[in-house]
Amino acid sequence: MPSQFDPPSGTRDFLAADVERREHAFAVLRSVFASYGFEPLQTPAFERVDVLLGRYGDEADKLVFKILRRGEHEASGDADLALRYDHTVPLARVAAAYGSRLPTPYKRYALGPVWRADRPGKDRYREFVQCDVDTLGSASPLADAEVLAAHYDVLAALGLTDATILLNSRHVLAGLMAAFSVPTALTAGVLISLDKLDKIPPAEVADELVGRGLAADQASELVATLTATDAADRTRVVLSKTDAGTAGLDQVDAVLALLSGQLPPGRIVFTPRLARGLSYYTGPIWELVAPGVAGSLGGGGRYDHLIEQLGGPDVAATGSSIGVERTLSLLPGATDDSARLDLAVTVLRPDLAGQSFAFAAAGRSAGLRSSLYLGSSGKLRTQLKWANDSGARWCVIYGEQEQQAGAVTVRDMRTGEQAQVPAGDLAGYLADAAGSER
Amino acid sequence: MPSQFDPPSGTRDFLAADVERREHAFAVLRSVFASYGFEPLQTPAFERVDVLLGRYGDEADKLVFKILRRGEHEASGDADLALRYDHTVPLARVAAAYGSRLPTPYKRYALGPVWRADRPGKDRYREFVQCDVDTLGSASPLADAEVLAAHYDVLAALGLTDATILLNSRHVLAGLMAAFSVPTALTAGVLISLDKLDKIPPAEVADELVGRGLAADQASELVATLTATDAADRTRVVLSKTDAGTAGLDQVDAVLALLSGQLPPGRIVFTPRLARGLSYYTGPIWELVAPGVAGSLGGGGRYDHLIEQLGGPDVAATGSSIGVERTLSLLPGATDDSARLDLAVTVLRPDLAGQSFAFAAAGRSAGLRSSLYLGSSGKLRTQLKWANDSGARWCVIYGEQEQQAGAVTVRDMRTGEQAQVPAGDLAGYLADAAGSER
Repeated sequence: MPSQFDPPSGTRDFLAADVERREHAFAVLRSVFASYGFEPLQTPAFERVDVLLGRYGDEADKLVFKILRRGEHEASGDADLALRYDHTVPLARVAAAYGSRLPTPYKRYALGPVWRADRPGKDRYREFVQCDVDTLGSASPLADAEVLAAHYDVLAALGLTDATILLNSRHVLAGLMAAFSVPTALTAGVLISLDKLDKIPPAEVADELVGRGLAADQASELVATLTATDAADRTRVVLSKTDAGTAGLDQVDAVLALLSGQLPPGRIVFTPRLARGLSYYTGPIWELVAPGVAGSLGGGGRYDHLIEQLGGPDVAATGSSIGVERTLSLLPGATDDSARLDLAVTVLRPDLAGQSFAFAAAGRSAGLRSSLYLGSSGKLRTQLKWANDSGARWCVIYGEQEQQAGAVTVRDMRTGEQAQVPAGDLAGYLADAAGSER
Repeated sequence: MPSQFDPPSGTRDFLAADVERREHAFAVLRSVFASYGFEPLQTPAFERVDVLLGRYGDEADKLVFKILRRGEHEASGDADLALRYDHTVPLARVAAAYGSRLPTPYKRYALGPVWRADRPGKDRYREFVQCDVDTLGSASPLADAEVLAAHYDVLAALGLTDATILLNSRHVLAGLMAAFSVPTALTAGVLISLDKLDKIPPAEVADELVGRGLAADQASELVATLTATDAADRTRVVLSKTDAGTAGLDQVDAVLALLSGQLPPGRIVFTPRLARGLSYYTGPIWELVAPGVAGSLGGGGRYDHLIEQLGGPDVAATGSSIGVERTLSLLPGATDDSARLDLAVTVLRPDLAGQSFAFAAAGRSAGLRSSLYLGSSGKLRTQLKWANDSGARWCVIYGEQEQQAGAVTVRDMRTGEQAQVPAGDLAGYLADAAGSER
């Protein structure tokens, strides 16, 4: 039941275990991209409305969170800023703003939240982290292959070693439309229907195509070709007869050739039915999927003129968008009982607190997450319970007896064994204990 | 001159060198906080307006970025959400929402952007990273000392080893007001004036106090006490005569005693004139300063009832806010010519690209940032220039000659020396070369 203290609809609070799990994955992403020479780019959470709106059509504009003007203009109800909807529009602005001060080609990744006023649902949020990896300024298939390899490596580095790349090209689709004599006016709609072949039965897609104006035999033959177990081979035969088709096959084969040596066998598959929304793609397109996972783990393609349409310079461009939230949801879950502390330090009498403080510092110098007891009880039993609840591996006990002996008691919270250690030797003792754990 | 491609007023784009510099500092913050057992908390960028507004008064409300309602409600000009103004209001909401599912005490840090529609200026932004470290649920001076030690350690770990903690207590200020017979009605105003003793001459502050209703000798004596070279000692004498004053000194001395053993000598100083805005503080207060730096590097204090006022449970609370942007501005600047690559790999003929791709992968497996040449020139000279511009330490050259020899040429971009290496030995060769660099 939603409470007044819940975060806004479609957003989440991340407590310790979730933050640590997510930050670990983000560190993997950064490290893989850096290893390919992709640079980080961080842009503001909001852009001016004129930069952001009207770029992807009315439907997308409705999903943009707009920020009210301030001061005397607030009453106007007008918006002058809007929250980032994706990382591509900011990339276009940055390419226009920094121009020749950026390296050529400009290989960058962007990792951060975007905001969309979508209806919240399972795995669908209004604030979610998106990660894009793109290369501006290279028309080479090597650039396509590089972002694809980086995307694949990210998944593998996160432990998703059974991902597969579905590869196609916009020219393959154009060649198919030509080969099946689909009128130009129907092409966009036909491709939207074909994109559903993963979700609904082939017969329904064929019906949809007839509804869009294709002849019944034309529709069923097209669907049959794309859904056959040897769809790739059948498509190759069909495509080899047209110029667009041959060009598309060349694109696909160039990327296949570059990646086949890099990936385990069978991890990249020519998939002629893949259409991927398509509007702005101009060359190879792809999606990454994994067995047993509905939908994709992200995808992308070449989009040579989009940056100009979005307000940037006219540059060749290619990139992949990683479905971060989807990918994270497949990783092992956070465990609620993950330890907050390595070392818990008692404070048994106020006048001993200064010494206890120093013992916690000794723990930190030994590389341990160390905390003092901050409660009001002076009872050892209460403080040991706190140490246990914190998941601490060791507890330093320091009371009157220890004070007189110039020592501390180190309790192994797992075994209950206790050792008396001279106060001055504590850091070394803990470093040794921690070392033998690793 | 502002261009249409600049980020919105008061915000910044961070290119590679800046991102890496900032992320390095953030990693230091996270690591120090974790070593004290503080947990990360991440809340959404926006909250519901009713959660956010009316918490800190009208002036603060004016600085809040409000988000327009969407869909049919957009035309109303109403806002239902607002961008996070600080990390304290979200903390109060989280404390209310998760209650007993949070550890007791709840030690958390929050590191992330906040947004304020302030007038942009030098070191003042509309989007800036704020970092708070707080402990909820402990009334112990140990909790105050712990957040202070963590704040100090963060600065030291970033290389700012000459920071000093100015320490005071709200009860010291109350005791001073009582000792100097300042009427209760004037107290708030008097403290606002005293807070200026760092910025304007003592005589002007005394004039201001007279303007606020203090007698001339009362004002000059108060100012003289607080600005004397032995201000702390003089204040101790004055305070020892009142109950509030004695209580305040006890608070200050408790924190001093806990930290004196942890910090280098002279790094924490009782500073009776420190007032720190004050409205919601209830105990010890502090600021961190550094020689030659105007203003503070952050500060905080105990604020035992604020969480309840902000909509959370009534818990004891203490915390420190780190002036991240200010602190970052003191660190060594980013160098524009920082290397993007360790290893550059030529692509001298399209049919050799697959092999070049594999050599770049060999570089990555040796831990090197490795990239292929993605341009359209087949000339070695052009590609070596690219390698040089990328700051690459080595360049792998692979042409016809190398292909026939089953080898690659590895060029040391610093010395110009070249070595021929069997293709299969490249990863090992590069790992050795990188190892001898370290």
